[in-house]
Amino acid sequence: MSGPGRFISFEGIDGSGKSTQARRLAAHLEGLGHSVVLTREPGGSPGAEDIRALVLEGEPDRWSPETELLLFTAARRDHLERTIRPALEAGQIVICDRFADSTRMYQGLRRAGLRVLVDQLHDLMIGQEPDLTVLIDMDPETGLARALSRNGGEERFESFGNDLQAKMRAGFLDLAAEFPDRFVTIDGARAMDDVTADVTARVTEWLA
Amino acid sequence: MSGPGRFISFEGIDGSGKSTQARRLAAHLEGLGHSVVLTREPGGSPGAEDIRALVLEGEPDRWSPETELLLFTAARRDHLERTIRPALEAGQIVICDRFADSTRMYQGLRRAGLRVLVDQLHDLMIGQEPDLTVLIDMDPETGLARALSRNGGEERFESFGNDLQAKMRAGFLDLAAEFPDRFVTIDGARAMDDVTADVTARVTEWLA
Ligand SMILES: Nc1ncnc2c1ncn2[C@@H]1O[C@H](COP(=O)(O)OP(=O)(O)O)[C@@H](O)[C@H]1O
Ligand SMILES: Nc1ncnc2c1ncn2[C@@H]1O[C@H](COP(=O)(O)OP(=O)(O)O)[C@@H](O)[C@H]1O
Ligand SMILES: [Mg+2]
Ligand SMILES: [Mg+2]
Repeated sequence: MSGPGRFISFEGIDGSGKSTQARRLAAHLEGLGHSVVLTREPGGSPGAEDIRALVLEGEPDRWSPETELLLFTAARRDHLERTIRPALEAGQIVICDRFADSTRMYQGLRRAGLRVLVDQLHDLMIGQEPDLTVLIDMDPETGLARALSRNGGEERFESFGNDLQAKMRAGFLDLAAEFPDRFVTIDGARAMDDVTADVTARVTEWLA
Repeated sequence: MSGPGRFISFEGIDGSGKSTQARRLAAHLEGLGHSVVLTREPGGSPGAEDIRALVLEGEPDRWSPETELLLFTAARRDHLERTIRPALEAGQIVICDRFADSTRMYQGLRRAGLRVLVDQLHDLMIGQEPDLTVLIDMDPETGLARALSRNGGEERFESFGNDLQAKMRAGFLDLAAEFPDRFVTIDGARAMDDVTADVTARVTEWLA
């Protein structure tokens, strides 16, 4: 399905440490001699980055949930065709900071019933899941404090507050329960190096 | 389905006179006291125009057929939600220069089998057809000569040549045969005023 390579995604609430841990895992695996492609969503290919900019710019109600879903799916299709699939076919390890589970979780929160549409559109136009998804789980307060301490960032998805962080956390835990074969849940509310050690151990074990 | 209004689309090969005839029909119906919204695809709402620009800019192979299809569907969804549906609900006549039939025809030509995907995506995310589709039919040579005589224009879809114009014509005629209840085919290879008289007569009859 995904070629001879391996496809690993990171998921978790804002500030949970996805980008940090994805970067560290990539460096670790490269140190072991693996060929690694570190990428992210939305974005991850030139066209997908352009679509990402279009979606994230402007007022929050610029796009309806359905239009936004179509735009993110267009970006994902481009990312998949131009970055992920070629790397997997070349036998590389692809590490992706967010993938389709983020869409499932976010759009599911936006409106009950939208999750069905997300899945139908995914099946029709994407049809690819990660081989392994690392969920970095933590309490909403810690994630929010970390996200806010970061400068820059895309406000549309990161100015949400505690309640929404809590719903997102629950949404991701639900997905982990729904896809137990590919999800690994890691406690992210620890020192960075402890989280990294845990991620490294779980991924190494899974790769073997 | 489309509210109390009426939804009329124009289709046909490049240079067939869609934009000319759509504009003239709008003026005619307004003269009769109808409230008319004249719009176009891809585009037709601020967000959809931004997506249109993204799709039509850049190299011809910038987007795969599937990614392009998703982007056009995102634009159409926005256009439908923000321009077409509100007008139909307000009882207006919407005249649209190209709609989903153009996608069916173009993507069907790009790769056999893509038409199935176009229809599935349309059913999932759009689900709206025009009440009436005016196909302006003509020989490819006449259309091409007219299109080339126009200045400006979007080269990606209009630098195709005679062979492709012939395939597009056949594609539209196939669609007219597939959807006989809503298609009206008009001979466009005549003087502008003759075509307009024909369009006006057919639409007036249909509206009554
Ligand atoms: N385990 C940790 N302990 C403390 N701070 C952390 C930890 N992991 C990440 N951070 C910091 O928290 C912020 C958010 O981390 P980041 O990796 O960007 O999260 P995400 O990509 O999930 O939003 C960054 O400033 C990062 O340096
Ligand atoms: N019946 C006609 N006879 C001659 N020229 C025409 C006729 N209809 C349109 N034109 C001209 O041909 C060109 C293409 O017409 P246009 O309405 O832009 O076609 P389309 O929108 O289908 O590409 C324009 O320059 C237009 O003025
Ligand atoms: Mg991040
Ligand atoms: Mg035109």
